[in-house]
Amino acid sequence: MRHDGRTANTGRPVTIEKDYLLHPEGSVLISVGNTKVICTATIEERVPPFLRGSGQGWVTAEYSMLPRATGQRTQRESSRGKVGGRTMEIQRLIGRAMRAVTDLEALGERTIWIDCDVIQADGGTRTASITGAFVAMAIAASKLFSAKELKKFPIRDFLAATSVGKNEDGTLLLDLDYVEDSSAAVDMNIVMTGNGEFVEMQGTGEESTFTRAEMNGLIDLAEVGIQHLIDIQKDVLGPISDMIGKEVTENE
Amino acid sequence: MRHDGRTANTGRPVTIEKDYLLHPEGSVLISVGNTKVICTATIEERVPPFLRGSGQGWVTAEYSMLPRATGQRTQRESSRGKVGGRTMEIQRLIGRAMRAVTDLEALGERTIWIDCDVIQADGGTRTASITGAFVAMAIAASKLFSAKELKKFPIRDFLAATSVGKNEDGTLLLDLDYVEDSSAAVDMNIVMTGNGEFVEMQGTGEESTFTRAEMNGLIDLAEVGIQHLIDIQKDVLGPISDMIGKEVTENE
Amino acid sequence: MRHDGRTANTGRPVTIEKDYLLHPEGSVLISVGNTKVICTATIEERVPPFLRGSGQGWVTAEYSMLPRATGQRTQRESSRGKVGGRTMEIQRLIGRAMRAVTDLEALGERTIWIDCDVIQADGGTRTASITGAFVAMAIAASKLFSAKELKKFPIRDFLAATSVGKNEDGTLLLDLDYVEDSSAAVDMNIVMTGNGEFVEMQGTGEESTFTRAEMNGLIDLAEVGIQHLIDIQKDVLGPISDMIGKEVTENE
Amino acid sequence: MRHDGRTANTGRPVTIEKDYLLHPEGSVLISVGNTKVICTATIEERVPPFLRGSGQGWVTAEYSMLPRATGQRTQRESSRGKVGGRTMEIQRLIGRAMRAVTDLEALGERTIWIDCDVIQADGGTRTASITGAFVAMAIAASKLFSAKELKKFPIRDFLAATSVGKNEDGTLLLDLDYVEDSSAAVDMNIVMTGNGEFVEMQGTGEESTFTRAEMNGLIDLAEVGIQHLIDIQKDVLGPISDMIGKEVTENE
Amino acid sequence: MRHDGRTANTGRPVTIEKDYLLHPEGSVLISVGNTKVICTATIEERVPPFLRGSGQGWVTAEYSMLPRATGQRTQRESSRGKVGGRTMEIQRLIGRAMRAVTDLEALGERTIWIDCDVIQADGGTRTASITGAFVAMAIAASKLFSAKELKKFPIRDFLAATSVGKNEDGTLLLDLDYVEDSSAAVDMNIVMTGNGEFVEMQGTGEESTFTRAEMNGLIDLAEVGIQHLIDIQKDVLGPISDMIGKEVTENE
Amino acid sequence: MRHDGRTANTGRPVTIEKDYLLHPEGSVLISVGNTKVICTATIEERVPPFLRGSGQGWVTAEYSMLPRATGQRTQRESSRGKVGGRTMEIQRLIGRAMRAVTDLEALGERTIWIDCDVIQADGGTRTASITGAFVAMAIAASKLFSAKELKKFPIRDFLAATSVGKNEDGTLLLDLDYVEDSSAAVDMNIVMTGNGEFVEMQGTGEESTFTRAEMNGLIDLAEVGIQHLIDIQKDVLGPISDMIGKEVTENE
Repeated sequence: MRHDGRTANTGRPVTIEKDYLLHPEGSVLISVGNTKVICTATIEERVPPFLRGSGQGWVTAEYSMLPRATGQRTQRESSRGKVGGRTMEIQRLIGRAMRAVTDLEALGERTIWIDCDVIQADGGTRTASITGAFVAMAIAASKLFSAKELKKFPIRDFLAATSVGKNEDGTLLLDLDYVEDSSAAVDMNIVMTGNGEFVEMQGTGEESTFTRAEMNGLIDLAEVGIQHLIDIQKDVLGPISDMIGKEVTENE
Repeated sequence: MRHDGRTANTGRPVTIEKDYLLHPEGSVLISVGNTKVICTATIEERVPPFLRGSGQGWVTAEYSMLPRATGQRTQRESSRGKVGGRTMEIQRLIGRAMRAVTDLEALGERTIWIDCDVIQADGGTRTASITGAFVAMAIAASKLFSAKELKKFPIRDFLAATSVGKNEDGTLLLDLDYVEDSSAAVDMNIVMTGNGEFVEMQGTGEESTFTRAEMNGLIDLAEVGIQHLIDIQKDVLGPISDMIGKEVTENE
Repeated sequence: MRHDGRTANTGRPVTIEKDYLLHPEGSVLISVGNTKVICTATIEERVPPFLRGSGQGWVTAEYSMLPRATGQRTQRESSRGKVGGRTMEIQRLIGRAMRAVTDLEALGERTIWIDCDVIQADGGTRTASITGAFVAMAIAASKLFSAKELKKFPIRDFLAATSVGKNEDGTLLLDLDYVEDSSAAVDMNIVMTGNGEFVEMQGTGEESTFTRAEMNGLIDLAEVGIQHLIDIQKDVLGPISDMIGKEVTENE
Repeated sequence: MRHDGRTANTGRPVTIEKDYLLHPEGSVLISVGNTKVICTATIEERVPPFLRGSGQGWVTAEYSMLPRATGQRTQRESSRGKVGGRTMEIQRLIGRAMRAVTDLEALGERTIWIDCDVIQADGGTRTASITGAFVAMAIAASKLFSAKELKKFPIRDFLAATSVGKNEDGTLLLDLDYVEDSSAAVDMNIVMTGNGEFVEMQGTGEESTFTRAEMNGLIDLAEVGIQHLIDIQKDVLGPISDMIGKEVTENE
Repeated sequence: MRHDGRTANTGRPVTIEKDYLLHPEGSVLISVGNTKVICTATIEERVPPFLRGSGQGWVTAEYSMLPRATGQRTQRESSRGKVGGRTMEIQRLIGRAMRAVTDLEALGERTIWIDCDVIQADGGTRTASITGAFVAMAIAASKLFSAKELKKFPIRDFLAATSVGKNEDGTLLLDLDYVEDSSAAVDMNIVMTGNGEFVEMQGTGEESTFTRAEMNGLIDLAEVGIQHLIDIQKDVLGPISDMIGKEVTENE
Repeated sequence: MRHDGRTANTGRPVTIEKDYLLHPEGSVLISVGNTKVICTATIEERVPPFLRGSGQGWVTAEYSMLPRATGQRTQRESSRGKVGGRTMEIQRLIGRAMRAVTDLEALGERTIWIDCDVIQADGGTRTASITGAFVAMAIAASKLFSAKELKKFPIRDFLAATSVGKNEDGTLLLDLDYVEDSSAAVDMNIVMTGNGEFVEMQGTGEESTFTRAEMNGLIDLAEVGIQHLIDIQKDVLGPISDMIGKEVTENE
């Protein structure tokens, strides 16, 4: 039994509130337990220099936390004048994950900007960001597709992420909250697609190591957790879900 | 009749959701029409260098907008590596306004950090920030006071703010939204206390000027609007309201 | 009687030395008591990106202080690697004020850069900067006009600024010097045009508040002070004065 | 057969030149094929603020590339004024990896600074950095231990890293060079200890995904490659090797 | 005959206006032809960390140009967010030069900050800065000495600087103005003391070279020019001159 | 006899290892005693904005030190977020020196980037950088010339540099190492061409001064030292040497 009453293989309650903000092309507020992230997707009609003229699009991400998302106030990165290493690592991860399920040629020379702003943090902010950002991106893509700006729906599969870890007693746990994460011996973030393939797997011993058997146990937990998250995404997206992972080309 | 159906002297609907976030000592989500700002107040048990040993506290503020608070995505100030002039001007204004109603000696050698993060912008974000931040600060102060950390309640009066302006036809308007603000000839932000005195008055002709009669008409509008906002603050704060502006010293 | 022998409604002695520097299109050294500011106006034959192709010009301003303009040495903003909030606020104010009396269409696609460098500070540096910058800008504009680069003289009215304030005894004062400003309860900066209209009005209670009656008293003082400054500007500008605020279009 | 003649499960030739520089406490030049990295370890007699008084030490790492380590000249991060996301990610990885085999209590309140400077890049610079940095750190630690500054040898196990990947044909490869890495569909960096446990595992689909079977195949390859690297480390370290992973406490 | 009527070995007219500003401990406005620099000296009662507890003082310098000191407006270094290479080179030169004639032990644990702000530039701004800064520093030192804060006068000798150069025809010239400097083949800045010794000598071929004979000719010119500048410094400093270079220790 | 056994007019042993790195167009590892610098030359097919369309090329340089090039670890400039004054001064010096012997018109609209990265420092890093960079640049130029990209060989003469100085006893020394440099009273860096002309001469009294006779003695020493360095350059460059300083135009 975990400190919040969950069993080892139970994730926290998840809600995804669609169209949370007025202005963005796609937006959600995702809550994973007490972790809350506003995820938005913005369509920009141009690409970074290295893709100009390629006919191909891009997906990029930025991640931030409000100063009081955390128990102690965190100084703003704008005040410090630079983006920290942890932030950069997370936003690079989110961007790569989104690109892995995006058909960049179908997108055409457009950039999708993903913004993940954590308004309340309780562990797992990067994986919640990925799970929420996918929904925001799918909504934005569906608007482009409905407006007949695209010939083909540009998202190839569902995508969600969770964290798993080993606590100090050696127990393997699904979906660590902040208290569990702070004392974990091993922490692993896994991003998977709807068809059960991996996009990212980042396992880290925190001044510790892990065996191959433990690695396999952690992945088993994550597979179950991610499948559940994708079911929630499908519910939230409704009819948009039907376009994902299919050769939807009626726009041609 | 204004583009959203309001009369010239009607403000937008206002809601203030108390205790919006888990971690901060005080927090609200304020909505003024479609403008939405998360305001938090953090108590820090130390003061800036220039006040050390003075026995006196400080209030300081930071302000930011999520990239998609706006119709077009705005680049993050952390990515640009510096805080812009508009942001600095607003956060200095918020800080000064809060200090004007704070008894810094009663606060003791503590800093109250005010964070105003606009999650959706539709005009009047700085005045909504002040109105919301006041409530967050009062909640945080009441926790300190209840914990008997203070001998005297450190807030001397209510504080709220609104914008008024003159449109291109010369009509004077209360509480401009983004569309009105963008085309206004004159824009004035006014911060007032519960007893009807001014804390800040910033009137600006936007490539335009204004007469003294127009100035007086704008202030008349603002006085009514701000009184209404303070009534809402009182409702939201409930019993905490009774400590403001009174010599509450039972903690002695 | 004030600490320097002035009455409450007397400003400090003002001198404006025209063509102070060799290189700029317009330049003055303005002294307001011991406050001394070098103001220059530079004509640049292009506009910021948002105005390209609009046929319209722009006026922008930068403000700085020499390290020993002040009693204690102030660290350079170039050494600190960023421009502070106070500087940004002042340079935005100067720019807005100049634009309010400039006919940006008559200017055509040009930028006027205003630089205000305080070489000695004794209170009122931002208002002295505005009063001096106006003269530098008028000189620069007159050179453009004489060279027949413009069809219409691009300055619509005179522009000057002063500060007024309430001291700790409640007395209202015109043109505060540093000693008075440091201890003032209320500080108000007012920018007005030659025909007596307001361009900016920024009143601030310094951990204090002010009533509407006090506000009116302060504005009364400022109106007299600014009218006197505009008389000095007219003397300094000589024949250039006659082109301001008139439909001078002989260049057509 | 790979483009350089290797089989899929063959790593590149590796050399580690010990005591490469005069000044550092530990230093090597590691070559993995054409990738060459100068790795140094510096002992500093203090710890970051969060560890002061804890009796515990720290290991931190910095990583950089010379501008012409690469085929095209890369702009210096010092000229750009900030450290990029990729660099931060790598130096955080190196630091975490080193800490996982360091007994921070045995180290006492000291910091080991690891510097990895790539002088020639041909793929796998981060894994070569880890493999080389471990040797530099062991040399530096042995000097501290020989000088009887430590009661216990502070390194618990060997540590090395390699990259593995899946190419566009689906073949799994050990130790990718730049050409292979640029076109890989999946890229995985694995850091392991001498006893065969994982410290880090970072697998990434590059606009692609991978199955669990592929993951297992990649790990199999990495285990063999890393065991070989640790054999080379043992040769280079000679007698220092005997202190690693043993309870060497004769200094007590 | 040079473009401004001077002969090859004639410097420009020089004036040094003492006590130019109200606040600094020492200040001058130096004019060398059309080059005008405000030089100030500030006494700070502490030293940089590397000198704390040494009983020794320090002299450091900063240099800047107003944007319109130049024919074309130069962007402010505070706006660019960093100090350029030329500025750094010049301020390091000024600091070294001042320290060469300062008795840092006699100064005690104090820092003299030299600020040189060019308000009008016409070549030779770094040498004019040195010549003017020396006078400002001597004035500041004399105040310290008069106040009996020092046992010994801390300035050992006079110090002045000039530029010499070779033009495109091979003629050697004293004190180049901007036009001459821009087209010079060789440019040399020389800093000398009152007793005719060198402190700095920086000769540079601008995409060109120079022979040893030319070097000697240039130095001959500089020696004459600098002696003249020191005569002017003596006039300006009056009785303070008598303390320089003498063992003035009556304060003991 | 000096601390390392050399006589006053003996330089340290010098080796230049050609083609040290795989990727750059020209590269060397130069060792001057224990000072070791990797120098590379990169050809870029474009010029800075101020030369576009001029038909003329450019040479620019960057200089850096590895953190453990020095006895104490030096913080990286990329971590500090800015390039220091010493670095800027050195890289400006290297660039100017290279340009003095480069025929920028013969180079055409290309930039040669010189990178000097000190991997081990023991005094004289800037002069070793110049001596090594010249060889790297000549190699890169010879590749361009062999590829018939140039009509004329763009290097007009050999170029090398050394330091000389006066120690505390007044002895004049050639090629100071770190120990000697740290305690020198006078330090002079001299850059000369193959035909014995000066390109740069920078003499500095370190809180000290020097006479004209001393200056002449120092230059005598430097002339001998530099001639020896140029002999080594010729050996290393082999047949490339024959193209330098000659009107090699067979490509026409």
